[in-house]
Amino acid sequence: MDFPKPVDSMVYPRHGNIATFMRMPHISDPKQLDVAYVGVPFDTSAGYRVGARLGPRAVRAASSAVRLHHPVHDVTVHERIRIADYGDVLTTPFEIEKTYDSITREFDAIYAAGCRTIAVGGDHGITYPILRAVAKHTGPVGVVQIDAHTDTHDTQFGARLTHATPFRRAHEDGLLVPSKVVQLGIRGSLFYPDDLAWSREHYHLVTADEIHGRGVEPIVEEMRATVGGAPVYLTFDIDGLDPMCAPGTGVPEIGGLTTWQAMQIIRGFAGLQLVGADLVEVSPPCDTNDVTSIVAAQLLFEIAAVFAVNHGRRQAVLKPAAQPRRA
Amino acid sequence: MDFPKPVDSMVYPRHGNIATFMRMPHISDPKQLDVAYVGVPFDTSAGYRVGARLGPRAVRAASSAVRLHHPVHDVTVHERIRIADYGDVLTTPFEIEKTYDSITREFDAIYAAGCRTIAVGGDHGITYPILRAVAKHTGPVGVVQIDAHTDTHDTQFGARLTHATPFRRAHEDGLLVPSKVVQLGIRGSLFYPDDLAWSREHYHLVTADEIHGRGVEPIVEEMRATVGGAPVYLTFDIDGLDPMCAPGTGVPEIGGLTTWQAMQIIRGFAGLQLVGADLVEVSPPCDTNDVTSIVAAQLLFEIAAVFAVNHGRRQAVLKPAAQPRRA
Amino acid sequence: MDFPKPVDSMVYPRHGNIATFMRMPHISDPKQLDVAYVGVPFDTSAGYRVGARLGPRAVRAASSAVRLHHPVHDVTVHERIRIADYGDVLTTPFEIEKTYDSITREFDAIYAAGCRTIAVGGDHGITYPILRAVAKHTGPVGVVQIDAHTDTHDTQFGARLTHATPFRRAHEDGLLVPSKVVQLGIRGSLFYPDDLAWSREHYHLVTADEIHGRGVEPIVEEMRATVGGAPVYLTFDIDGLDPMCAPGTGVPEIGGLTTWQAMQIIRGFAGLQLVGADLVEVSPPCDTNDVTSIVAAQLLFEIAAVFAVNHGRRQAVLKPAAQPRRA
Amino acid sequence: MDFPKPVDSMVYPRHGNIATFMRMPHISDPKQLDVAYVGVPFDTSAGYRVGARLGPRAVRAASSAVRLHHPVHDVTVHERIRIADYGDVLTTPFEIEKTYDSITREFDAIYAAGCRTIAVGGDHGITYPILRAVAKHTGPVGVVQIDAHTDTHDTQFGARLTHATPFRRAHEDGLLVPSKVVQLGIRGSLFYPDDLAWSREHYHLVTADEIHGRGVEPIVEEMRATVGGAPVYLTFDIDGLDPMCAPGTGVPEIGGLTTWQAMQIIRGFAGLQLVGADLVEVSPPCDTNDVTSIVAAQLLFEIAAVFAVNHGRRQAVLKPAAQPRRA
Amino acid sequence: MDFPKPVDSMVYPRHGNIATFMRMPHISDPKQLDVAYVGVPFDTSAGYRVGARLGPRAVRAASSAVRLHHPVHDVTVHERIRIADYGDVLTTPFEIEKTYDSITREFDAIYAAGCRTIAVGGDHGITYPILRAVAKHTGPVGVVQIDAHTDTHDTQFGARLTHATPFRRAHEDGLLVPSKVVQLGIRGSLFYPDDLAWSREHYHLVTADEIHGRGVEPIVEEMRATVGGAPVYLTFDIDGLDPMCAPGTGVPEIGGLTTWQAMQIIRGFAGLQLVGADLVEVSPPCDTNDVTSIVAAQLLFEIAAVFAVNHGRRQAVLKPAAQPRRA
Amino acid sequence: MDFPKPVDSMVYPRHGNIATFMRMPHISDPKQLDVAYVGVPFDTSAGYRVGARLGPRAVRAASSAVRLHHPVHDVTVHERIRIADYGDVLTTPFEIEKTYDSITREFDAIYAAGCRTIAVGGDHGITYPILRAVAKHTGPVGVVQIDAHTDTHDTQFGARLTHATPFRRAHEDGLLVPSKVVQLGIRGSLFYPDDLAWSREHYHLVTADEIHGRGVEPIVEEMRATVGGAPVYLTFDIDGLDPMCAPGTGVPEIGGLTTWQAMQIIRGFAGLQLVGADLVEVSPPCDTNDVTSIVAAQLLFEIAAVFAVNHGRRQAVLKPAAQPRRA
Repeated sequence: MDFPKPVDSMVYPRHGNIATFMRMPHISDPKQLDVAYVGVPFDTSAGYRVGARLGPRAVRAASSAVRLHHPVHDVTVHERIRIADYGDVLTTPFEIEKTYDSITREFDAIYAAGCRTIAVGGDHGITYPILRAVAKHTGPVGVVQIDAHTDTHDTQFGARLTHATPFRRAHEDGLLVPSKVVQLGIRGSLFYPDDLAWSREHYHLVTADEIHGRGVEPIVEEMRATVGGAPVYLTFDIDGLDPMCAPGTGVPEIGGLTTWQAMQIIRGFAGLQLVGADLVEVSPPCDTNDVTSIVAAQLLFEIAAVFAVNHGRRQAVLKPAAQPRRA
Repeated sequence: MDFPKPVDSMVYPRHGNIATFMRMPHISDPKQLDVAYVGVPFDTSAGYRVGARLGPRAVRAASSAVRLHHPVHDVTVHERIRIADYGDVLTTPFEIEKTYDSITREFDAIYAAGCRTIAVGGDHGITYPILRAVAKHTGPVGVVQIDAHTDTHDTQFGARLTHATPFRRAHEDGLLVPSKVVQLGIRGSLFYPDDLAWSREHYHLVTADEIHGRGVEPIVEEMRATVGGAPVYLTFDIDGLDPMCAPGTGVPEIGGLTTWQAMQIIRGFAGLQLVGADLVEVSPPCDTNDVTSIVAAQLLFEIAAVFAVNHGRRQAVLKPAAQPRRA
Repeated sequence: MDFPKPVDSMVYPRHGNIATFMRMPHISDPKQLDVAYVGVPFDTSAGYRVGARLGPRAVRAASSAVRLHHPVHDVTVHERIRIADYGDVLTTPFEIEKTYDSITREFDAIYAAGCRTIAVGGDHGITYPILRAVAKHTGPVGVVQIDAHTDTHDTQFGARLTHATPFRRAHEDGLLVPSKVVQLGIRGSLFYPDDLAWSREHYHLVTADEIHGRGVEPIVEEMRATVGGAPVYLTFDIDGLDPMCAPGTGVPEIGGLTTWQAMQIIRGFAGLQLVGADLVEVSPPCDTNDVTSIVAAQLLFEIAAVFAVNHGRRQAVLKPAAQPRRA
Repeated sequence: MDFPKPVDSMVYPRHGNIATFMRMPHISDPKQLDVAYVGVPFDTSAGYRVGARLGPRAVRAASSAVRLHHPVHDVTVHERIRIADYGDVLTTPFEIEKTYDSITREFDAIYAAGCRTIAVGGDHGITYPILRAVAKHTGPVGVVQIDAHTDTHDTQFGARLTHATPFRRAHEDGLLVPSKVVQLGIRGSLFYPDDLAWSREHYHLVTADEIHGRGVEPIVEEMRATVGGAPVYLTFDIDGLDPMCAPGTGVPEIGGLTTWQAMQIIRGFAGLQLVGADLVEVSPPCDTNDVTSIVAAQLLFEIAAVFAVNHGRRQAVLKPAAQPRRA
Repeated sequence: MDFPKPVDSMVYPRHGNIATFMRMPHISDPKQLDVAYVGVPFDTSAGYRVGARLGPRAVRAASSAVRLHHPVHDVTVHERIRIADYGDVLTTPFEIEKTYDSITREFDAIYAAGCRTIAVGGDHGITYPILRAVAKHTGPVGVVQIDAHTDTHDTQFGARLTHATPFRRAHEDGLLVPSKVVQLGIRGSLFYPDDLAWSREHYHLVTADEIHGRGVEPIVEEMRATVGGAPVYLTFDIDGLDPMCAPGTGVPEIGGLTTWQAMQIIRGFAGLQLVGADLVEVSPPCDTNDVTSIVAAQLLFEIAAVFAVNHGRRQAVLKPAAQPRRA
Repeated sequence: MDFPKPVDSMVYPRHGNIATFMRMPHISDPKQLDVAYVGVPFDTSAGYRVGARLGPRAVRAASSAVRLHHPVHDVTVHERIRIADYGDVLTTPFEIEKTYDSITREFDAIYAAGCRTIAVGGDHGITYPILRAVAKHTGPVGVVQIDAHTDTHDTQFGARLTHATPFRRAHEDGLLVPSKVVQLGIRGSLFYPDDLAWSREHYHLVTADEIHGRGVEPIVEEMRATVGGAPVYLTFDIDGLDPMCAPGTGVPEIGGLTTWQAMQIIRGFAGLQLVGADLVEVSPPCDTNDVTSIVAAQLLFEIAAVFAVNHGRRQAVLKPAAQPRRA
């Protein structure tokens, strides 16, 4: 079993070479991989400031600065798991439904090959078609969502497939285990008084205020207890971070998480049954001198390190085609 | 008959006040106007770098620096025509066809009220639904298109309504008089060898090379001769300009027009039957310190001045509902 | 009694339409309003890096992303109070005294109509002429000032009307109740050893160090206790925030407040007799990709929410012309 | 007689050392110099987008890249004339009249010492107090003004001392020889129909259109013929250039000069009686990555080279105190 | 013989996928190619503003917008020649000589395989080690250099291998045919009076002034006549362009070429014996919103099109190891 | 004994005048000074994103906003110590070893004159040649290093003199007292599993995680206890700060220190035997609107204030030439 090797940053300087995620090789065959970085350059389901379609490219470039041993987990990612840059899935900027179907189809094929994914968006709408693929192979999943917004609206501008609605759609499709959904970092002004009501009713919602007030450690413990041993998917909207950390996103909200808090949350996945992850809403045109892409690349490394450290431990088995129940 | 008055820049400094086009009042009733600036904040039909949805807002802000007497035409725009900021038409970022229908509907109502429009995009796809509205009231129109690209593809990514296809769609719908369509400034690499063939067959295509080689004056004369006394629509894709003049656009092409050349072309509309105009593809996220928005605002002023100087001369009569013929 | 309604962001996308504060209508008649957002595009009293004259315009644009229900106060701002965008007051960039007089005159008229104000600067010098107007209708007020600097110098470059002196001037004019003035977030290098002495003698000065050291909650309690039931004016210099949160200002100082700390302070005004507020020193030319304007817009929403939640409770009565005592 | 020597860019790299104009030493004693670069960091007389107060600093930094031999005039500037960085004159950001008096006083002292100046603004208002000083020593001067705007308004916002009025004020004070005033590059929208009338009546006004249409060479000849052997002052508003060349200025106007055209004009001063010069309206906050400052630095070198090449030829004698006649 | 195919931009949108030059596949085996794009991410031989080490990466990203049929040459590049992205050669940022040796070694291997190169720098110093490799296989070559500076200094800061000296070193090594070296676009201030003397003595030097004065067509004819049927190498320093076209470079000089002029020069290589080319000194950190990278990508396409159109015509034969004569 | 005086910011506005560190005079004679700000504009030993060569210039400009009395130490820096801007040391961008020797030579001369230094880089490699000079006069020193990275690699790309290796080299040369070396803020991904092992073995390494977890106060106490009364050198790599505070650096790492934490650490040097300091890796091309330079300038002030407050207390005596022991 071959472990793909990154470009060696001790030989080829980090400003050089064709930019792939973490300088890993470009491998489109998921059978060769345990985990694939997958670009999803699609932002047409974003309702306001777009640009996240350029996210995968910018994060690839920024990720060349990441080294590959994690100092806390003490794991060298590419030596523990077979991980590479899968490339980007097929998208078309003009059609949301068609693109979502394309996303589901391609992620389905990846999971069918026994490979898990770290998707890089793109807007948050893409998590819904990814979950459609993942849940086919795992059954309904727990979800940890780091985000300023719950993204559980029913519609936006009358449309059902948008970046404000993925978790409502996933819920309806039975892709989630509601009791194992944790939303962390929620904050900001609301469209309607009851915007949070649906989430509070179905999920475990933790506001950013609560994280700042109580500290991040007990929140991580709660998250771990809620999710338990179930298969769990991590979805990280970069606007979960405060604008000071991640200005390059479409809808920043003040009072958000610091990168350090976010790192504690991600590190808290050690030992959980992590079956997939994504990082979305990095919008390079909204960014300033790539700082958000740099932050995103380092968070991707944190996520990859969790996959690596969990590898070899008892893992959720990916089924050829588990059938999610319709809500 | 009341002439709307701008905020007086000799009293209220130009950095102040709510930003409208040229500091004119916000008037949504087209019956009060001869010409309306109309924002069309829609860029979902753009296939690559988006951001033109933010164009109207940025151009409004930049336009506060424009004064209102034209030094060459010797006309004070707002004293010759009733002109104001209509506001933005209804768009929804997720649906192209629905938005195009909305655009046509709203422009139709404006023209039905006897008012002409200077639209500010948004991506170039919006010209098609605008032409659907205009041609209802004028019959098929001549078109002068300043652009790097012909935008006459049949489809892009399999879609028929995109910013690469508006003039093919308008052609099919019989909205244009092909012999009176002039495309100026065309250049850049092509997808396929025959990308220009269709345009060369149906329209009068003038490359940027030809304009640089022959000088702009004879080209303007040709344009005027081609268009003649027919109703004509001016559509200005900001990427007709060279990137040095207009970096803030999705698909810049080197070797383009200077602003001075563009100004000569616009000024060449004096005496023509100008029935409408647009300026599209200004993408603030692709811009640097608003320079493209500033350029766009001044070009809008050049366009408005032509409407003003032509006013009172023999003008094309807007019909309640002329019926374009289907190609 | 009509409540002005914002543009509905569920119908018109947030990147569209003429930019007003919070997408509220432009209403220049204060009699129709309980609270008015008022732009004050003036920065000639700034002694170093200017640009705050462009603040109101940039914050208007950024504010279109704010929704209108507050998640903590559980109040929909525009349904509880009549609030709108008043537009900008008359300023002239060349003359400080004349402009200050103009500001006082216009705010006086607004308060005389029974309307309170949330002013958006502009440099911090504008707070002095605003306080001249406010105190006419409330008598001397308490002031909570979030700021890096005390702004209590006697003169700057020999001038008495500058952004370094407003609270010295207001003090001399008897516009303030010194025992109810709280300065929060003070820090940074000083011109002279005794720069803070005057403030410490007359006011309740709390350094940023103290806020970081003790936590923000006890500080908020102290602030509430100090101000008590007196009429109080909130003045927020954006440089009260750390440069990481608000780089777009003339004189940033490290070691400042986070937005989360600032939000706790503003929320602490619930139940107080808030008679007016301002947010100043947002300088778009010093900003990077609008992040400071975005932060400012969200802080304005926090301030508006306090006005809304306090509304209907026992409120300070605005008098036609209370006479401040000369110090 | 000592010739000040620049930092040697073949020894000390250009990114190093304290930034002075052209890396020349800082010498505040005008008696040691033939020509002094003088910073005038003042922009309070600018009516719209400010920032030119930061111009001298930014141009100093950019000028370190300039080498010191001119390839066309074949002259090494600092070996032909004693030239250095005088530093900045005293200004106060709050008061125009007081600052103008300060400027006049300091330039007067420089000219009284037999030294000429290349001033770096600052807004264009500063040319008026400089001319008050220059004309004391030369009598009324000819002026060549490269500019988009005539700057001959009577007042702006009711004020007489602004960046829109310097040449009206200088005219009234008899500082100019009207028949020897040439305005080059004028263009752009006007406040009022007769904005250009005054200039056309009193001066030789050449529009940018005319320069593009006729070519720059005959214009230079006209300029030389108009100015003849009289003492002449060169005032270069960076907005004389097209925004593509100089985006970093408060009020850019499209259709402007290229740097190459501007260089031809400046080089046309060889052999004229150049008694002083300035370069104004470089506004770093409006700039993008210093490109306008770089352009400005190189234009300053072109100007200095003219002083150098003219040196030793028959020169206008600076009088201790020639008295301008009041108009 | 397989022709590598680009990612199809009609299927995969241009913002997607791993960024390679022109979306061509990454092929490191030169035997499979007629022409290779080769990145040289090295800028340690730049003496002032660095950043060109990031050039290849930025140009790769920008190049995804280029389509692949040339409208004037009427050639589809990748269907006429086997061309691909070779990747980057090995460089080390700390050592110039070692890196130059590495560059020579790697280019030598490419040419030995019968493949020609379009190198993307990196600073201009890299042309010297490339020429060492090229001339081994062609004998001494003619050179057309588009540049603001001659780059023929003997040393800079005492060093012999810098971006100011490549053509002096190549000359000494006998890699060039001096009578067939053309330097186009030279301008700007000089370190010493005789900076141009050496070039004028040995080469055909054409200043930018001359190109602007005489027009570009006769210059192209001269260039073609000078080079004749000899093997010729094209080296394009992006600072040959005016800063308005290419701000993103270390040492911009005003009065430079427009992109249109540069395109005419490159197109003038049709029919010449073009054996290699490079584009250097694109410095993304000096750029504004990628505009220089976009320009560079389109110029690379112009260069590639010349290789394509010349292919099949009588071509210079690459020898296994022609021996350049030492000067 | 003369105390150099800064430009008075109450007379000359802060945007004016030639930019020196803290507006102090330029004095190259170390005998006149107790402490010298010394620019070291060199970044060739940086392995990835360069630009720190422009650091001293940018920090000089930003520092003009700093006032000179410290509010916590209650000391007016320039009245307690003789401090000024020494200018920049001689560097050559092409040669690391030669430049390091030059740095050592020049700092040696400064220390030999009894003057201490606050160096402004430049990349972190420069600390090694500075320590060679310092230790000659103090003997081996304790070091407090605020940094994301330990910089104790043996080589980078095979080179021994790089910004990744200074403390390994200094260690080998016996310039340090290992038991008195404290590394604060260490974090981020590692090249190899044992990257931190060497530091943990020889030094007192404190991760950023630990600082966030325990709070900064006990860390400061530990640092003071570790260093004790020994001569100590403070080296501050700006990437010790979180990217939200200091985006303008070559290799930012998330989870870093806030400026407030850094200020507590620096203030903790009061009473220690501080013999020198530096601030490195500020890279203006990686910065956004100068925010990192502003932060750096204020940290420099914090450092200078410690020198000032310690002055007069018992101080480490600088020896003419103490001999460090070879490791």
